[in-house]
Amino acid sequence: MPLAAAYADPGKPLFDKVLVANRGEIALRVVRTCQEMGIRSVVVYSTADRDSAAVLAADEAVQIGPGAPRRSYLYPPMIIEAALRTGAQAIHPGYGFLSEDPDFAEICARSGLVFIGPRPEVMTRLGDKVLARELMSEVGLPVVPGSARVVSDPAEVLATVKRIGLPVIIKASAGGGGRGMSVVRDWDELLPAFRATRAAARAVFGDERVYLERFWERARHVEVQVLADGHGNVVHLGERDCSVQRRHQKLVEESPAPGLAPEMRARLTDAAVQGASAAGYTGAGTFEFLVNGDQAAFIEVNCRIQVEHPVTEMVTGIDLVREQIRVAAGLPLSVSQQSVRMCGVAVECRVNAEDPSRDFAPCPGELTEFVPPGGPFVRVDTHAYPGWSVPPHYDSLLAKVIVWAPDREQALCRMNRALREFRIGGRGIRTTRDLLRDVLAHPAFRAGEHGTALLRQLDEMNDLAMR
Amino acid sequence: MPLAAAYADPGKPLFDKVLVANRGEIALRVVRTCQEMGIRSVVVYSTADRDSAAVLAADEAVQIGPGAPRRSYLYPPMIIEAALRTGAQAIHPGYGFLSEDPDFAEICARSGLVFIGPRPEVMTRLGDKVLARELMSEVGLPVVPGSARVVSDPAEVLATVKRIGLPVIIKASAGGGGRGMSVVRDWDELLPAFRATRAAARAVFGDERVYLERFWERARHVEVQVLADGHGNVVHLGERDCSVQRRHQKLVEESPAPGLAPEMRARLTDAAVQGASAAGYTGAGTFEFLVNGDQAAFIEVNCRIQVEHPVTEMVTGIDLVREQIRVAAGLPLSVSQQSVRMCGVAVECRVNAEDPSRDFAPCPGELTEFVPPGGPFVRVDTHAYPGWSVPPHYDSLLAKVIVWAPDREQALCRMNRALREFRIGGRGIRTTRDLLRDVLAHPAFRAGEHGTALLRQLDEMNDLAMR
Repeated sequence: MPLAAAYADPGKPLFDKVLVANRGEIALRVVRTCQEMGIRSVVVYSTADRDSAAVLAADEAVQIGPGAPRRSYLYPPMIIEAALRTGAQAIHPGYGFLSEDPDFAEICARSGLVFIGPRPEVMTRLGDKVLARELMSEVGLPVVPGSARVVSDPAEVLATVKRIGLPVIIKASAGGGGRGMSVVRDWDELLPAFRATRAAARAVFGDERVYLERFWERARHVEVQVLADGHGNVVHLGERDCSVQRRHQKLVEESPAPGLAPEMRARLTDAAVQGASAAGYTGAGTFEFLVNGDQAAFIEVNCRIQVEHPVTEMVTGIDLVREQIRVAAGLPLSVSQQSVRMCGVAVECRVNAEDPSRDFAPCPGELTEFVPPGGPFVRVDTHAYPGWSVPPHYDSLLAKVIVWAPDREQALCRMNRALREFRIGGRGIRTTRDLLRDVLAHPAFRAGEHGTALLRQLDEMNDLAMR
Repeated sequence: MPLAAAYADPGKPLFDKVLVANRGEIALRVVRTCQEMGIRSVVVYSTADRDSAAVLAADEAVQIGPGAPRRSYLYPPMIIEAALRTGAQAIHPGYGFLSEDPDFAEICARSGLVFIGPRPEVMTRLGDKVLARELMSEVGLPVVPGSARVVSDPAEVLATVKRIGLPVIIKASAGGGGRGMSVVRDWDELLPAFRATRAAARAVFGDERVYLERFWERARHVEVQVLADGHGNVVHLGERDCSVQRRHQKLVEESPAPGLAPEMRARLTDAAVQGASAAGYTGAGTFEFLVNGDQAAFIEVNCRIQVEHPVTEMVTGIDLVREQIRVAAGLPLSVSQQSVRMCGVAVECRVNAEDPSRDFAPCPGELTEFVPPGGPFVRVDTHAYPGWSVPPHYDSLLAKVIVWAPDREQALCRMNRALREFRIGGRGIRTTRDLLRDVLAHPAFRAGEHGTALLRQLDEMNDLAMR
């Protein structure tokens, strides 16, 4: 691609070639930015993804194994070998899979490859939720009332819950992505749930450690996006509200957080910047908080690009993947806190191939019709296309529909229009599209007054049953 | 659509239903904004367009005649009848077809329908290029040196050209969209071209009047977007550079105009606002200029939304169709000159179904593959989809690819990536996609130093022959 090369930043010590160790829309997302930066891209893929849009778009593609993640996207040796064989100098891990695995980052370094993310020791510290809570407490960030550290003794569990009260959430220290959590509302359930969560954590993550937090039922999930480079620059790009969740997984995200008081916004963004500085963070990261009235508390840090990063891109105009790559190449951030301008409102809806009426069961199958919406200020990040089959091995995300508008009211109207326009069809394919339109129509959501319990409320209103 | 209705601006005297008297991407574009405003939409269509995306997206669709434009999209009785029958209160004419026809606007008014555009008398005055030049001269706007009025006598033609010099362009007073123009470089060609242009204008527009202008070969085409309401508010939304043209039709447009001196920008935007005020303009309109070094001259006004309006939307965040509808409904503009903020750079490329190697001959046929590009800050306005057949009756526009970036360099890299990613296939289908990538790679274009002769220069460099 001589033209792409001609367009690369002149004279900058960027990578020539980057390998993307992921799949789906985020693999395509990273390939796009590489192409815009004049960097050649290599995508690794499993046999289940051989027709994926990322494979079609990348300069090179290397098959690394079968559909089962443990034997492909979670298997470092094949990924490292593909990088070395194709001459890639760096690896972008996307989100999920190996993106927050400090061991993988170590292996990259030992193989002479740049891992596009924070340093392994930073990931180790922040990835352990108990250590991260300790760090954040040290720099003066409030945390949700809880056990403060791992609990392994039933007596300690009872004592903690006596102190912080019910309901509580039991979380696996190694958990993430909505897995490894149990909410407990009654004393009778407490010790059985404690034992069950430990057993599940041991089975899923190979680490049975758990901790307790007070469960703020009506709280909002607010997270702050930070960018940091190796030159001492740390900036925040404002916050996202991700309170609309099903089974602790986000469905709708927006920026800025509606109704967030300016003082609360300043507290959270300051806390995130201080936390990132204290941890020696580099790259793109997210500091997650719960906000309950005028109380705020730190939950965890995500050491990677997030699914919902486009809403931040839409309100700031900044390509976050580009900044990740610049930082990994040793360049400074292209923005300073002064130059970041936030404008308007962006909302993202995740259209998943799953059936809301059957507890969000995934619906793999062939897409016979797939025409994403378009028009002003509508962005669709998707790897799907007509004729493509949704494989059964992975998460069920089909497309992220993102809209921007000068204000929230217009943004919600635009999203409603975009979702309505989205044509998706296929034998057995069900999606979250209509559920998302119900969320948009919900009075609490429209007023910006919803908490993380919104979907359960929707369910109780029998909106799902009526469809 | 109860939800859409619930989202309409509360308590505003907007229309309940709007009829779109157009086809293709602009019909879909207008339907989208109607839906976002909670307005029901009716699309009229010819038999050739019965499977169009606008027909699929609209709330209602009415077939008004066969593929031939004179018997459908250019035939007012069927359109008016469709509006009255469906209970539409207003008609959006899009661009082309009846959009600048004051008689059609009159017929709408007599039928009790609101024409979404300026008043008929304003369109009459500005649509006549000779009258428009006179008006603009009166308010002190420079015009390109020329005959100042219609010329009908060969002796007058010779005298004018002696005064202004060669080359000249002979233009039909009723012309537009690149038709009804001849460039004359030699004295020997002058009178034959004068007679031929008159004859062609009589045949095509039913109006043989022509006028002469000095032809500024290296000039840039710069146009200013204005919005005006019925409450005395007139604002400009900056300028667009549309210098990349083939046969006087635009192929690439961008905002802001690269390298335009701030004083020149102020002169042109002031001139447009003054001109719009003087003419009593309402709605969205464009004032077109030629810029030749530090010389600037008015060419014409376009009394409608333009194909290239998205680049202005991308740098201002304003939905121009929404403003058109608000103004037609008697509401004030939603923006003031103070509140308009221009940010970054937007570029549009027109991907046409035509063969650049055969003098841009249209290529109708079925699209077997059609996957538009996506990702950050990429917008594609298109009515095409996989399996749709490009009909032979209309212009060959397949898709407008629009990108935004913080600066022009990044915007061009992004556009290059987006065009590369665009997958279009079909038996006999050729497009301007690769030509557009050649334009992006041209040193004069990359430096922002190109004029309207760029495509001829590209041709002379044999880039076309080499492909």
